[in-house]
Amino acid sequence: MQKQLIKDLFIKVKEQNPLVHHITNQVTINDCANATLAIGGSPVMATSIEEVEDMVKLANALVINFGMIDDETYAAMVRAGQAANTKGIPVIFDPVGVGATPFRTARAMDFLKHVSVSIVRGNASEVFALIGGEAKTRGVDSGTLAIPAGELAQNAAIQLQAITVISGKLDTISNGKEIVQIDNGDIWLTRITGTGCMTASLIASFAGVTDDWFSAAIAGMSVMSLAGERAKKALQEKDGIGMYRMKLMDEIFLMNEQIWTEEVRLS
Amino acid sequence: MQKQLIKDLFIKVKEQNPLVHHITNQVTINDCANATLAIGGSPVMATSIEEVEDMVKLANALVINFGMIDDETYAAMVRAGQAANTKGIPVIFDPVGVGATPFRTARAMDFLKHVSVSIVRGNASEVFALIGGEAKTRGVDSGTLAIPAGELAQNAAIQLQAITVISGKLDTISNGKEIVQIDNGDIWLTRITGTGCMTASLIASFAGVTDDWFSAAIAGMSVMSLAGERAKKALQEKDGIGMYRMKLMDEIFLMNEQIWTEEVRLS
Amino acid sequence: MQKQLIKDLFIKVKEQNPLVHHITNQVTINDCANATLAIGGSPVMATSIEEVEDMVKLANALVINFGMIDDETYAAMVRAGQAANTKGIPVIFDPVGVGATPFRTARAMDFLKHVSVSIVRGNASEVFALIGGEAKTRGVDSGTLAIPAGELAQNAAIQLQAITVISGKLDTISNGKEIVQIDNGDIWLTRITGTGCMTASLIASFAGVTDDWFSAAIAGMSVMSLAGERAKKALQEKDGIGMYRMKLMDEIFLMNEQIWTEEVRLS
Repeated sequence: MQKQLIKDLFIKVKEQNPLVHHITNQVTINDCANATLAIGGSPVMATSIEEVEDMVKLANALVINFGMIDDETYAAMVRAGQAANTKGIPVIFDPVGVGATPFRTARAMDFLKHVSVSIVRGNASEVFALIGGEAKTRGVDSGTLAIPAGELAQNAAIQLQAITVISGKLDTISNGKEIVQIDNGDIWLTRITGTGCMTASLIASFAGVTDDWFSAAIAGMSVMSLAGERAKKALQEKDGIGMYRMKLMDEIFLMNEQIWTEEVRLS
Repeated sequence: MQKQLIKDLFIKVKEQNPLVHHITNQVTINDCANATLAIGGSPVMATSIEEVEDMVKLANALVINFGMIDDETYAAMVRAGQAANTKGIPVIFDPVGVGATPFRTARAMDFLKHVSVSIVRGNASEVFALIGGEAKTRGVDSGTLAIPAGELAQNAAIQLQAITVISGKLDTISNGKEIVQIDNGDIWLTRITGTGCMTASLIASFAGVTDDWFSAAIAGMSVMSLAGERAKKALQEKDGIGMYRMKLMDEIFLMNEQIWTEEVRLS
Repeated sequence: MQKQLIKDLFIKVKEQNPLVHHITNQVTINDCANATLAIGGSPVMATSIEEVEDMVKLANALVINFGMIDDETYAAMVRAGQAANTKGIPVIFDPVGVGATPFRTARAMDFLKHVSVSIVRGNASEVFALIGGEAKTRGVDSGTLAIPAGELAQNAAIQLQAITVISGKLDTISNGKEIVQIDNGDIWLTRITGTGCMTASLIASFAGVTDDWFSAAIAGMSVMSLAGERAKKALQEKDGIGMYRMKLMDEIFLMNEQIWTEEVRLS
């Protein structure tokens, strides 16, 4: 059963301390490094095209985040992605803002041609754009779509041949056959920057210690949503998003299989 | 009256959720994104020259921050600024460190030739350097000048044809005719990095929902100074600048027209 | 005696407010800026090759951090380093991840050929790689070595002609003749990103106000370890690494000669 598989991942990630290589944006790069550490992984953020292949050789998972791509970074992403494919480690792709500008959409399509992606994580409009839909992504925000998230995730998983994670009020994960939804979270997760990016780091940390990437995707996504829920409860009157960010990191750090089993709501 | 105009902006920014496009430095980029979210805006930080024009098409305001410019970023700034001018959205220019090196000063002058800036925000020596004065900017710190801030702000506003905001013990804002000063703040605002940069984000968030950029400038500047004052009061004994940074973000997030009306000191 | 020399540095750094120029990585750049401010210095982070020489002219110390080097940044580092040598200000070199990839190791060797480094700060495997050892640096993590840290620090100090600081459970500093060890710290310093980078900022802040770089190195390293120890004690139940990061910054900010003298454990 899924829950038992995921429970074991909490122990494994802390024991094995997987090295998670990120090529990511400047906005949330620090949050991603700390989230990786909080769950038990070890982050590395090298982006020079001259060393990404060598760094991938040391890594257990690779995160590619499109938040602030330019030509140089993009070239390093493709090279790192291909090295990860050759080595057989999971590639977690976060198509931030895809659908917002033709540049991003074109680069995302190009990336998918050159690199075999293991897990895609985005909001509904990003994922919709990724499978060729004309979503209205507004900047890097999530938009609203007419397709149910479950159907979208499943279609995307089949078309992209990748576990697909759609963050939202309900989070939705599909491997193309099964669809899992997570009913945890808090609206304040959308009021700070970086929660999506950090979710990719958490997923990658779990994916770095197992071949069961579907469980890893559910684990990473649900840790973020549950930590977001618990962080809100841990706040005191007159706390705002400054303290919320810190408590969110605390709750990721304090998360374990007991808390997760008792409080996660999967369906 | 100014105060009523500003009060309305607090509601508007939360209703309209303006998209604020930043091309900014790596040091405080995360703070700027979170400050934009805290006040009710939506941040986007794309910097690739290939997409900045398309991103500006979606945006309601553009922040250009000179904290860590290089040739590539500078080219993107000019292109984005010109797109913003064409579209008619406000350009908020933060001339970080201008006056410190010939490179920065030359680029700032060049920028002003190519882009029509709506609002300039800096410390006294940066603004002085911007209008051709030989200020002694030390790194990115504010220096001390012999000219009164009111006169400097007014002169700069006339010369640059832009609302001018000078951060300081008293903050000074001028549209070339009127001069407004804000007597809120706390010395600790100078003991953490990013408060100037975040002020530009706040100003841009307000400017993204109104044509009254003078009110937007006063609103953004005063929110930062008042939040800084309130954050200090919210600290407990043995708190330092780590906790202060978080409480500052909290106070920006919690700010509303009631608190602002009661506690802001404009003259 | 060493302790008295260091005590005086706390007062000097707050009086003189040294300008510390950093060319560093995107992950921890904000932490480094705030740590510099917390101890009493003033940070500047310019990296454009066109202005680094001019910025060094204003600076009192230069930090070179290899966390995310690429060709362009590397060229700026060499130019800034040479300008610092010419001016006679201290160069603090943080060889992040050296030993992990051939690219990093080669660049570090090349850097040492072109720039005279005053103080090196790294973990044991990075320092070992820097003196030609075949360490197993895993990403940017510290590995484990068979050589005692004291011997390694002393050998490195002699070979590199630079004060050498090795962070670890015991921190070790050598000037080639003497070896000092610091028995403060907390394991959570390794559970957040940036503590190594911030240590270099602290060392540079102290080195910017004295010619006694050995004392400056001990001061900066011990402030980090002692602040990390004190921050842990300041936590409340259910706090994690989010709050720990803030309390760490608080403790750096609150550190002074009294606290330091009473609680530091040097041998």
